Amino acid sequence: MRCANFIVKKPMVIGHECAGIIEAIGSEVKNLAPGDRVALEPGISCSRCNLCKNGRYNLCREMRFFGSPPTNGSLANKVVHPASLCYKLPENVSLEEGAMCEPLSVGVHACRRAQVGPETTVLILGAGPIGLITLLAARAFGAPRVVMTDVDESRLAIAKSLGADELIQVSTEMKDASEEVVNVQTAMGSGIDVTFDCVGYNKTMTTALNATRSGGKVCLIGLALSEMTIPLTPAAAREVDVIGIFRYRNTWPLCLDFLKTGKIDVKPLITHRFKFTQEDVDAAFETSARGGNAIKCMFNL
Amino acid sequence: MRCANFIVKKPMVIGHECAGIIEAIGSEVKNLAPGDRVALEPGISCSRCNLCKNGRYNLCREMRFFGSPPTNGSLANKVVHPASLCYKLPENVSLEEGAMCEPLSVGVHACRRAQVGPETTVLILGAGPIGLITLLAARAFGAPRVVMTDVDESRLAIAKSLGADELIQVSTEMKDASEEVVNVQTAMGSGIDVTFDCVGYNKTMTTALNATRSGGKVCLIGLALSEMTIPLTPAAAREVDVIGIFRYRNTWPLCLDFLKTGKIDVKPLITHRFKFTQEDVDAAFETSARGGNAIKCMFNL
Amino acid sequence: MRCANFIVKKPMVIGHECAGIIEAIGSEVKNLAPGDRVALEPGISCSRCNLCKNGRYNLCREMRFFGSPPTNGSLANKVVHPASLCYKLPENVSLEEGAMCEPLSVGVHACRRAQVGPETTVLILGAGPIGLITLLAARAFGAPRVVMTDVDESRLAIAKSLGADELIQVSTEMKDASEEVVNVQTAMGSGIDVTFDCVGYNKTMTTALNATRSGGKVCLIGLALSEMTIPLTPAAAREVDVIGIFRYRNTWPLCLDFLKTGKIDVKPLITHRFKFTQEDVDAAFETSARGGNAIKCMFNL
Amino acid sequence: MRCANFIVKKPMVIGHECAGIIEAIGSEVKNLAPGDRVALEPGISCSRCNLCKNGRYNLCREMRFFGSPPTNGSLANKVVHPASLCYKLPENVSLEEGAMCEPLSVGVHACRRAQVGPETTVLILGAGPIGLITLLAARAFGAPRVVMTDVDESRLAIAKSLGADELIQVSTEMKDASEEVVNVQTAMGSGIDVTFDCVGYNKTMTTALNATRSGGKVCLIGLALSEMTIPLTPAAAREVDVIGIFRYRNTWPLCLDFLKTGKIDVKPLITHRFKFTQEDVDAAFETSARGGNAIKCMFNL
Repeated sequence: MRCANFIVKKPMVIGHECAGIIEAIGSEVKNLAPGDRVALEPGISCSRCNLCKNGRYNLCREMRFFGSPPTNGSLANKVVHPASLCYKLPENVSLEEGAMCEPLSVGVHACRRAQVGPETTVLILGAGPIGLITLLAARAFGAPRVVMTDVDESRLAIAKSLGADELIQVSTEMKDASEEVVNVQTAMGSGIDVTFDCVGYNKTMTTALNATRSGGKVCLIGLALSEMTIPLTPAAAREVDVIGIFRYRNTWPLCLDFLKTGKIDVKPLITHRFKFTQEDVDAAFETSARGGNAIKCMFNL
Repeated sequence: MRCANFIVKKPMVIGHECAGIIEAIGSEVKNLAPGDRVALEPGISCSRCNLCKNGRYNLCREMRFFGSPPTNGSLANKVVHPASLCYKLPENVSLEEGAMCEPLSVGVHACRRAQVGPETTVLILGAGPIGLITLLAARAFGAPRVVMTDVDESRLAIAKSLGADELIQVSTEMKDASEEVVNVQTAMGSGIDVTFDCVGYNKTMTTALNATRSGGKVCLIGLALSEMTIPLTPAAAREVDVIGIFRYRNTWPLCLDFLKTGKIDVKPLITHRFKFTQEDVDAAFETSARGGNAIKCMFNL
Repeated sequence: MRCANFIVKKPMVIGHECAGIIEAIGSEVKNLAPGDRVALEPGISCSRCNLCKNGRYNLCREMRFFGSPPTNGSLANKVVHPASLCYKLPENVSLEEGAMCEPLSVGVHACRRAQVGPETTVLILGAGPIGLITLLAARAFGAPRVVMTDVDESRLAIAKSLGADELIQVSTEMKDASEEVVNVQTAMGSGIDVTFDCVGYNKTMTTALNATRSGGKVCLIGLALSEMTIPLTPAAAREVDVIGIFRYRNTWPLCLDFLKTGKIDVKPLITHRFKFTQEDVDAAFETSARGGNAIKCMFNL
Repeated sequence: MRCANFIVKKPMVIGHECAGIIEAIGSEVKNLAPGDRVALEPGISCSRCNLCKNGRYNLCREMRFFGSPPTNGSLANKVVHPASLCYKLPENVSLEEGAMCEPLSVGVHACRRAQVGPETTVLILGAGPIGLITLLAARAFGAPRVVMTDVDESRLAIAKSLGADELIQVSTEMKDASEEVVNVQTAMGSGIDVTFDCVGYNKTMTTALNATRSGGKVCLIGLALSEMTIPLTPAAAREVDVIGIFRYRNTWPLCLDFLKTGKIDVKPLITHRFKFTQEDVDAAFETSARGGNAIKCMFNL
């Protein structure tokens, strides 16, 4: 079994979205104490390579990341983790919300890389979990107008309830792409500065490249296809840049601030809760795989 | 006849690479005088739209550009042009070199957008005129190491003579792409920070996306294909960004400085010279279309 | 009479904060019509110099600016102005609010230059009109925490009502500076990323330089003193950069969006209203000069 | 004895510019071997704080830096140092040149922060060791024109020999500042984009602020005065930003590349050589303190 270059060679623990309570600390740890509630950033970078030195540690080739082979994940009762990657939860932020810092970080990192701000109109393609999280992040970064598309009406309804300004239902047919470009542009009412493709199909990327204004940015987050057939050249010739993201870097403090101040509310994304028992774990994975109205399934000890 | 959205509806003058001698000036023009030798930046932007106000005037939708329908080009004995787009040639820069500011501007704009500097290793795919010019620009921006590829040995020889550090002959077969990625990476000897695709085929873009280091940039300059089939997602997931360029903006002063100081020598790119007579014009276009050793054909009055 | 390099040699019209109703348009103007309500950006740049071409047109040396000698201002019943500098008011934005785009633009430009965002804690020194406007702008740019100082308690009360998180009353005595640095840092509760000095005295700048975290920015907006005696070196040696601003560039669309969406409410800043009669004009200038609770005095035709 | 916040409480080893030969390596070190010639980056940051995570590790508050109390320096026969801060010397770079990476890094970091490139005209105030090194760095970053000032004619002669385009002898009298601003602007022949103040007196900073073009940058490197009396406001009102620097971050690879390729030749800066004996050490410090023609004194084992 493999995911990209990560190959599973023996049974291992998965999971990388978690929060918990400190049980013990190392002798040199000063800013944490047993009993502290913390959210965990799941990747340990080498801090020695060129990318780490330059602050792009998420790209570190020596990264040890919860659940990425051969590193065991965090779906466990206890984990050992560096203090500098454990972030104390504000009083009004629950452990569940703390665990949500991980998916939220993807949206936050994407917004940082795409430089979303109060002048950035945003189109989001795909209203799945990552699309919805990107919506929340874009809003928190000040995006004045966010338009979203999906094939699924119920997902669009969720996006609406989470604050998207306009929702456009789209098809999976490439032949509809041109018309849909017109639709999203009309829905935006002005140039589209940044498009987040949270799907990653030929059609979504085609829409992204064609709909974004000259000089804007397309941020590819979804990973559905490895190889894409897309009209890249006409977009490049309008200086529409394609920005990629890999996980996140140093996003936990900001995520926790968003949660503390209420700028972002992740609770509506937690749709199912399970105990951390064999029976419940099985049920949780089935629920998650079924999709439907499940966005995030949460385990509680 | 058309080129992208530019449609030729009636006979028109083409050409947009030119330099000349001022014959007359408007009453409010102060920094030019009849007799001045000048290079001409070919596009007149509106200076009123949002893109113009923000300094990205090359993307202006109201641009009137020499030779782009319906605007007549500069392949003429005389043209009328705004003084602010006429740049005085330094004494040691010839009219021919002045005309070369236009193609050189493409390379300069690409290097600016890709932020090439003394820390940027550069891979250039394609050793045609634009590839060669990008080589000259990258060197002038301080790139410490430039590796180039082409299918044609004689073009690589020219690239060598213009200062490329390593040349790799490649095939047009996609099956060779993986091996060629290894070859260019080996030739670079360290991570490839920026790749300029000066061709724009599936294969070149595939090489570009796979060869560039995590966190690096691919700049797409060549326009061979409109729609591309490429491994975009794995590159995006290594934060390899794809940067496009459209012409250039405010590059003439820098180009002239490069020519004046000798940091760039464009003379080797001028391979053929013609008079501006009917007979010679025909010969020039034939020479240019034949390719071969013709890089740039120059008309002189 | 002079203000910096602007010297008044003969009677002239002053004023540069205005909005109005279009009475007539030029034959080539397409996006405006008589009857349109518009806010006016007061400066006309040359659009030809290097700074204009690069998008920094506010620094253009040929700028003709309402009320800056020798250009007459906008405190008049009618003015002639380029269409590209007249911005249509959204339906829910009044002419008064439209006129407030000018002072608001100062805060917006400062926040842009200082790169204020949802991760930027902000200290504002001085709660006069510009300090208050910078507060509103910083909030609209997402600043999660804004601390303000002033010598005047009533001004701090206004700042409080406009949304500042913490207010610190300070003295004019330099001997108190060290203690006040501790106070503002304590009030922030974390590093101060950006400090806006909206006063421009030795003491405010001393506080700014000493209080801002290593790697942060000080933005000098206030112009009280030309020459300053300040501890610049220790701040420079912590990479605290000092950013200046001159007016603004291309801020009207964003200001109008802030007003339309309610992200910024400038109405509380309009404390006095006058008719545009000789008698009222005199009263208005007296009111404004007296200071006190007057923030902005507005003339209505 | 103290230097800023660094207080010497007991005898300690000083020195932070060094290169040497690896004698032994830790069991996990892979890219170094005994016998390797290396240059040492002298500061060990925590790699855990926010500044380290964001790539600005030079500002880390937990930094342990050779010779900064209480950390012993490198003026010793042997030191223990992390492998990630030991950079292998290219074959054609000597140990002496390797040791020069440290002062060179100051110039390199300054040029990076001020974004010097082939479009950046540079004024350097002060032709002492740091001024000269900044000259070499600015040239390597592509600065097309560098003008330098100093009070000392012999230093200017050295600057000339190292490649400065124009040299201006200045006085220490503030009354001459206005005239000298005109002189440096005239010598530049166009706007001054970046000024490096490598002295740090009121007068040099006054010249820097007044001479730099609107929208340019002043980089303060010299630390002569802690408190300065300077015309900061008029410069801020022309958007001349003041950039500070603290040491450097991740500069060794670039420095070594500059030395390897010959883009920078630091050998002329090594004016005196000493053995590492008590007698010679005394002589070396006397030589260095005397100034005169001594730029850098080098100890060799």
